Amino acid sequence: MTTETVFIEALRALATHDAARGLQDDAAVLEIGGAALVLTSDTIVAGVHFLPADPPEDIGWKLAAVNLSDLAAKGAQPLACLMNYALTGDDDWDRRFLLGLKEALDLYGMPLIGGDTVAMPEGAPGVFTLTAIGKGPDCGVPSRSGAKAGDILCVTGTVGDAGLGLELAKRGEKSPPNCLRAYRRPQPLVQEGQLLAPLVRAMMDVSDGVLIDAARMAAASAVAVEISLDRLPLSQALLSSGQDDLQLRTAAATAGDDYQLLLAVPPGTPLPLPVTIIGRFAEGQGLSLLNGRTLVPLPSRLGYLHG
Amino acid sequence: MTTETVFIEALRALATHDAARGLQDDAAVLEIGGAALVLTSDTIVAGVHFLPADPPEDIGWKLAAVNLSDLAAKGAQPLACLMNYALTGDDDWDRRFLLGLKEALDLYGMPLIGGDTVAMPEGAPGVFTLTAIGKGPDCGVPSRSGAKAGDILCVTGTVGDAGLGLELAKRGEKSPPNCLRAYRRPQPLVQEGQLLAPLVRAMMDVSDGVLIDAARMAAASAVAVEISLDRLPLSQALLSSGQDDLQLRTAAATAGDDYQLLLAVPPGTPLPLPVTIIGRFAEGQGLSLLNGRTLVPLPSRLGYLHG
Repeated sequence: MTTETVFIEALRALATHDAARGLQDDAAVLEIGGAALVLTSDTIVAGVHFLPADPPEDIGWKLAAVNLSDLAAKGAQPLACLMNYALTGDDDWDRRFLLGLKEALDLYGMPLIGGDTVAMPEGAPGVFTLTAIGKGPDCGVPSRSGAKAGDILCVTGTVGDAGLGLELAKRGEKSPPNCLRAYRRPQPLVQEGQLLAPLVRAMMDVSDGVLIDAARMAAASAVAVEISLDRLPLSQALLSSGQDDLQLRTAAATAGDDYQLLLAVPPGTPLPLPVTIIGRFAEGQGLSLLNGRTLVPLPSRLGYLHG
Repeated sequence: MTTETVFIEALRALATHDAARGLQDDAAVLEIGGAALVLTSDTIVAGVHFLPADPPEDIGWKLAAVNLSDLAAKGAQPLACLMNYALTGDDDWDRRFLLGLKEALDLYGMPLIGGDTVAMPEGAPGVFTLTAIGKGPDCGVPSRSGAKAGDILCVTGTVGDAGLGLELAKRGEKSPPNCLRAYRRPQPLVQEGQLLAPLVRAMMDVSDGVLIDAARMAAASAVAVEISLDRLPLSQALLSSGQDDLQLRTAAATAGDDYQLLLAVPPGTPLPLPVTIIGRFAEGQGLSLLNGRTLVPLPSRLGYLHG
């Protein structure tokens, strides 16, 4: 086991309260005063979760967006957030970060109500944390663990754009701009999550890649999942970047930062917005991959794992 | 203005929601479902908020304690917390940190329900964040800003012990042990805060030093405050460390990490636990210091300001 796996196992032994959901969901769900509070907190680190050369406005945006996406995955309405900010020593950079953060908070109606500002030792990397609080849907807060054998696996939007965007950013390229934008300005699907929550058996956001995240949903639900690579929704921008082959589809299915919603529903469930059916759940366990009618071997890496 | 002051001013411009309390209180207060949620989040950084050589169990304890102390200052009952942990690369250190954290969480009944674990680039300092959620008292959540001219200023326990403890820790000394313990294992006054909350005009915890924190309470309340150094409650351990003179009392009044409660009450208010009257509020603004009947000049540094 890696250091991180060992540590998270130790955390799980600590986090035995129901609200923690075994630390296996996108967010914690705390019942208070008849309401279900949805709580999530993500930390992003320079050189691990973003490129130090990314524009600071985009990093501020992203810090809000990754947390909003966790609320979206639980169908929660954003209520408020707290931010923990490590000053970088560059006042202009810090100022620009706040501009991007404010754009996202304003757009999604999530007021900043507290947090902490700290100085860091010389040379330390940027480390930024945001804790988001939302109100869960009255119908109950969907988990990752509710998928049943026979359910279909669906995804919103298109996948793989941000993964290509990250490669473009690393190489200093700017085209296709939609992919760069998908990486730098992810759009959390807050309204979509609220619309879907009453209808799904299980829901989560795609943050590390379709394959690894679908495998997590299947494992949490104690079922198997089969994904058809040829059904993955790919954008024109992504398709225009290379040949539409197995390699491109595998890259799209294992790239991080999509922030689409992944959901399990019984077949034939009418949904209020367009989604793409990319697979199905079955008795058993594990992930299998199809391309057309051909079973293809799993790639060595199922998703984007940070650091 | 310092970089931090400029940044916090920019944050205040962002945090206009009532729940933020102008970012001038120990915690945010969010009304939901008829309950007042009290939310606070503190980050601690190696070399800034603790010594890298401090025992990891004590750092884990402290991360919980500093946040619990903010809840205590608002008379809140701890409900849950989320932790954001930057892996240090030393598995044994991380494991010991969790032991100390667990001790505090168990003792104060604050379950861990979520958060994030991140890897850091090589050589980065330890950075740990905890976000605590509490339930505010039904009588209303006390603020820092309710003190009135004529109120008296009181403090729980003794002050200055942790300040001396920090000096001892820096020098590798172990005596007096009570002071070292006050620095390493601060005891947040959660029950005391709940008992005091219905009776106070204003309350906060002493995290940066009695003088600076009392000055903050006075400024938030738009009144002046006068503190009598000769009335400061000092422990036998602190008194035995040097001569009981103005220098020792000034050091105790400007040292951080006490985590006592500072409160404003009308004179003659019966209180459910022992406190020491150390000053009074008056019309006007600013802080003045007395030693006996003598007005003494303010020290150049009113408290312990990190980094």
